[in-house]
Amino acid sequence: MNELSNVELKLNDFGYKLPTAPLPMAKYDSYQVDGDIIYLAGQGPLVNGKCPEHLKGKLGVNLTIEGGREAAVITALNILSMLKSISGNLDNVKLVRLMGFVACDDEFYDHPTVIDGASELLKAVMGDNGRHSRVALGTNSLPFNTPVEIEVFAKIIGGSYE
Amino acid sequence: MNELSNVELKLNDFGYKLPTAPLPMAKYDSYQVDGDIIYLAGQGPLVNGKCPEHLKGKLGVNLTIEGGREAAVITALNILSMLKSISGNLDNVKLVRLMGFVACDDEFYDHPTVIDGASELLKAVMGDNGRHSRVALGTNSLPFNTPVEIEVFAKIIGGSYE
Amino acid sequence: MNELSNVELKLNDFGYKLPTAPLPMAKYDSYQVDGDIIYLAGQGPLVNGKCPEHLKGKLGVNLTIEGGREAAVITALNILSMLKSISGNLDNVKLVRLMGFVACDDEFYDHPTVIDGASELLKAVMGDNGRHSRVALGTNSLPFNTPVEIEVFAKIIGGSYE
Repeated sequence: MNELSNVELKLNDFGYKLPTAPLPMAKYDSYQVDGDIIYLAGQGPLVNGKCPEHLKGKLGVNLTIEGGREAAVITALNILSMLKSISGNLDNVKLVRLMGFVACDDEFYDHPTVIDGASELLKAVMGDNGRHSRVALGTNSLPFNTPVEIEVFAKIIGGSYE
Repeated sequence: MNELSNVELKLNDFGYKLPTAPLPMAKYDSYQVDGDIIYLAGQGPLVNGKCPEHLKGKLGVNLTIEGGREAAVITALNILSMLKSISGNLDNVKLVRLMGFVACDDEFYDHPTVIDGASELLKAVMGDNGRHSRVALGTNSLPFNTPVEIEVFAKIIGGSYE
Repeated sequence: MNELSNVELKLNDFGYKLPTAPLPMAKYDSYQVDGDIIYLAGQGPLVNGKCPEHLKGKLGVNLTIEGGREAAVITALNILSMLKSISGNLDNVKLVRLMGFVACDDEFYDHPTVIDGASELLKAVMGDNGRHSRVALGTNSLPFNTPVEIEVFAKIIGGSYE
């Protein structure tokens, strides 16, 4: 399969490249499929398995909204990469639900703008297939001092890959 | 359709009125349907799109259990309103799972009593259709300084509305 | 049904015994089934309905990783007990998704190692049926001052028990 999916062509248009699908960080599976629903394990802003130093930390402590959104974009790219490795072709996947946690100070209240970094990119490249319901909120700490963790339920279009 | 559903009749008996279905607060959809499951976006205690000033804040900081439960009730009304706008008739909807976050001080441990404000109302007006599994817990901060955020998975009874 | 399931035989091999299935701690149901998916209510490290005193608290405050993992193991036993009471036989259940919250200090970042306490046990006794996608993260406070809360979506293998 040498042809790029429309989703990947759009990613390239925006100047992004699909990273290698991240491996689980502990004793679990990267995903499970039940029927046509893909349950993706929580993803973070990891690049080659590590959170870039400048993105470690929390919103309202050491990170700005801009830093949080950059982390959300990297997380979205990891999500797309996972979904490609599962489905074979990103044009055959539809998002359903996205839950986004933002590590932050107790007085930070703008989690939606941070998670929008992921939602906007996913919808821009997946089109209608990128639409999703969403829960966005704060937490006092995320694994490995990452600022963003996102869980996605997606759907394989046109058949089960179980 | 001028007749009120049994759920709405019971709401009225309790002195509540269904609000207008809230709009998404950021770049996501209010809900997604897969098969017969409705994934509702996270809902909060918003009235006409805003959290009432006296309900802003956190349990154990400036809000009492009573304030938290009032926020949970308003959130439940928004959930019902969303479910009506999706299903057309609240008598055709069954709750499945409810996840409730309570913004709170690190020493607040009574999240279940707060989220019960929503669970009790939903079961009182929906009857057996209001039964749900539940996760209730704390967080250090919720969007827009609201004290409660609830995500619901529901089910359309008697057919798919996808 | 007097014969023990393979899962229970393995539990016994590891020196564990299935506890009595825990009751809901508030106004909700212990589980709901939709199709073949079981949505379990959030479970904690309760023994006979109470969190053992030495396990109360938070990681990075008064609890070590070891204490957190002990809590995760007890939580996993409660999950297995719930799944047995729902399915009748643990050999007929497959895990799908696990979401694990760890109550912790703002500077604690090793939630995956804590939740691994549950993931490792579940996979050791359920084999391939214990595999699951996962979200693990922190929170500033959990109900009743427990250090771990886990939600599981599981699947009944070979038919619907709805």
